[in-house]
Amino acid sequence: MRDRLCGLLRTFYARGWVSGTGGGICARLTDRELLLAPSAVPKEQVRPRDFFVVDARDGRVLRRPSDRALRPSECNAVFRAVMARREAGSVVHSHALSAVLAGDLADPDGRLSIAGFEMLKGLRGGSNREVHRVPVLENTSEESELAAGVGRALSLPEFEAAHCVLVRDHGAYIWGRDVTETTRHAEVYHFLFDGVVGRRSLRGVNR
Amino acid sequence: MRDRLCGLLRTFYARGWVSGTGGGICARLTDRELLLAPSAVPKEQVRPRDFFVVDARDGRVLRRPSDRALRPSECNAVFRAVMARREAGSVVHSHALSAVLAGDLADPDGRLSIAGFEMLKGLRGGSNREVHRVPVLENTSEESELAAGVGRALSLPEFEAAHCVLVRDHGAYIWGRDVTETTRHAEVYHFLFDGVVGRRSLRGVNR
Amino acid sequence: MRDRLCGLLRTFYARGWVSGTGGGICARLTDRELLLAPSAVPKEQVRPRDFFVVDARDGRVLRRPSDRALRPSECNAVFRAVMARREAGSVVHSHALSAVLAGDLADPDGRLSIAGFEMLKGLRGGSNREVHRVPVLENTSEESELAAGVGRALSLPEFEAAHCVLVRDHGAYIWGRDVTETTRHAEVYHFLFDGVVGRRSLRGVNR
Amino acid sequence: MRDRLCGLLRTFYARGWVSGTGGGICARLTDRELLLAPSAVPKEQVRPRDFFVVDARDGRVLRRPSDRALRPSECNAVFRAVMARREAGSVVHSHALSAVLAGDLADPDGRLSIAGFEMLKGLRGGSNREVHRVPVLENTSEESELAAGVGRALSLPEFEAAHCVLVRDHGAYIWGRDVTETTRHAEVYHFLFDGVVGRRSLRGVNR
Repeated sequence: MRDRLCGLLRTFYARGWVSGTGGGICARLTDRELLLAPSAVPKEQVRPRDFFVVDARDGRVLRRPSDRALRPSECNAVFRAVMARREAGSVVHSHALSAVLAGDLADPDGRLSIAGFEMLKGLRGGSNREVHRVPVLENTSEESELAAGVGRALSLPEFEAAHCVLVRDHGAYIWGRDVTETTRHAEVYHFLFDGVVGRRSLRGVNR
Repeated sequence: MRDRLCGLLRTFYARGWVSGTGGGICARLTDRELLLAPSAVPKEQVRPRDFFVVDARDGRVLRRPSDRALRPSECNAVFRAVMARREAGSVVHSHALSAVLAGDLADPDGRLSIAGFEMLKGLRGGSNREVHRVPVLENTSEESELAAGVGRALSLPEFEAAHCVLVRDHGAYIWGRDVTETTRHAEVYHFLFDGVVGRRSLRGVNR
Repeated sequence: MRDRLCGLLRTFYARGWVSGTGGGICARLTDRELLLAPSAVPKEQVRPRDFFVVDARDGRVLRRPSDRALRPSECNAVFRAVMARREAGSVVHSHALSAVLAGDLADPDGRLSIAGFEMLKGLRGGSNREVHRVPVLENTSEESELAAGVGRALSLPEFEAAHCVLVRDHGAYIWGRDVTETTRHAEVYHFLFDGVVGRRSLRGVNR
Repeated sequence: MRDRLCGLLRTFYARGWVSGTGGGICARLTDRELLLAPSAVPKEQVRPRDFFVVDARDGRVLRRPSDRALRPSECNAVFRAVMARREAGSVVHSHALSAVLAGDLADPDGRLSIAGFEMLKGLRGGSNREVHRVPVLENTSEESELAAGVGRALSLPEFEAAHCVLVRDHGAYIWGRDVTETTRHAEVYHFLFDGVVGRRSLRGVNR
């Protein structure tokens, strides 16, 4: 699992999703334990032994990497807020520019509506016939302060089909039942972010 | 042939044409048999032994991969609809965003007209002096429902020079006499999709 | 030299400059002989033994590759038209979309004016203080018909600083004294094509 | 250190930051000595033995590479102007197009204001709550003439949080306390350049 997460971080880095040491990843190790990437290090250089094991309920660090300079990812609280409300075996946090630009297109109520993309079928339960709604939260000073807002958004019925939360100016949290589904959802959502931004650009031109 | 198709899928994936498990590929094995990629799996991870062999006339599965979890590509019916009307030895299905955006530029009659590109000469029979017309179909809930529309479009004289069908919100089906020509046509059409989208953007600016 | 040209073709392909079998390359072997890539084959797959040796004065084939299916590049006449008027040891032909879009920005007299880029200093004799003018020719049905127009353009004093000819809807011919300079000029011009297109897009927005 | 700088140059080249032999890098070897890349050579081909060692105070060459054709980078004076006013262990010079386009967005007083990006926290001392100001200088004929302007800009209190100077039409100088921080700052600033340009494009469309 650790090897796999490191491989994903390198892939995500190559796509510009976790640049500048940003972004993060976690995955369930057991019902009670999460593997969590370290904070503030180049994500493409994370090694299997650099992960923290944290308590899935309260985020407490259960086992630390031997490199004592490492700190657990700031995503800790948000990742657990997602897992508390969704059947999520893994969550990734992307800092992709396309996620930021897609967040700029949110409506005033903090909602990005995505429709008219076959790619929506790449989401579990997704359909190319419905409007898919993703919550878009305001950014906060500290990442840990986002957790409450993420929890509230995921309690709203209108977002029950979402496997993603966008944070304005910041990026996206994307999850799936396991690492395989999370990876697919991450590809799908980044395609959709590019899609809504690309369409908005062309629509402006076509007016 | 199986190795080659797997290599192409990896190349297409690297270009963003088959992300999120989308897209597909098939090729004639014999007059009566088609090799068909599996559905709903990451296309860049398809192995030579994962292909189905299906009947070229009715799409019936003749030989399955040993991995019983695999299902044949949803493209099955569309691929055969193409082959029934064109001398096609291979068909690829792309989910590239550029194909979706190019589809958005279709005229109300469901036609994308491409002209003013030397690259058109990269299509068999293509010329940089003519308007090249590609049919653009409306998307359907299920991919298999597209087959009838593909067949009708390819019966129309105005599309007789087309080696591609676009599906709105969805992507493109592209073919050639053999895998080599299909690969070249795929490169050419994706260049043309980027080209019409890029020109539309600049034209908007220049008004 | 043959190895080096093959390596460059692979690099150019990876950048989208010679996709769909388009584009080409040549280099002086001796005062009287040119190495010329084959036509209508995937440029990224050209092998050292696939090159033609042609007469630098009249383009006559002096030595053919053993693969008798290969034909000499259509660029033959244009490459020699460049070499007749410039001290060029190598010429590349790019089919990059950025070259096509930059050609769209030509003024009605067939001229692209580029200024305000430090990158202009990457051209031999280039300066970031002057307006650099590149001729933009109308496209023709056959590539060989371009040679006369290229020769005329390169005789005009206003284009004496140009190491490039653009062809509308088609691409660019770029050269240098030797392969090293040609490669640098190719990088510089493609940066400039992207630059004028990117600036035009933003300028439209800023009006 | 030399190996590491060569690796970074290859990485920067792959991203389009040092194309056409442009760009450069330096790093402190000791308090009194700087490692400086050579000028006017393809940056992706620089080898560990190609670096100059120059005096950190006056830029005098202390040790030259054995290849006598090499000349020290034109960035010499600018790099030292940065190091004289900032605690910088390394400086990179980028020729990225995104840096040029971001420079185009400067206000008339020569200032680029960046706000509303979580990525700002990737800068030492950075915050997602403040407006980050980067000086934008006018370009000069010779790179060495930029040094005085860089020194003046970095003396202004309004730019005290900047780890970057932009030069119009040209590119960016970016630094950090050591090579690791410089690399992170380079990633962050290029993300921000893409970000302000991307947002300006969409804002134009949304008017």
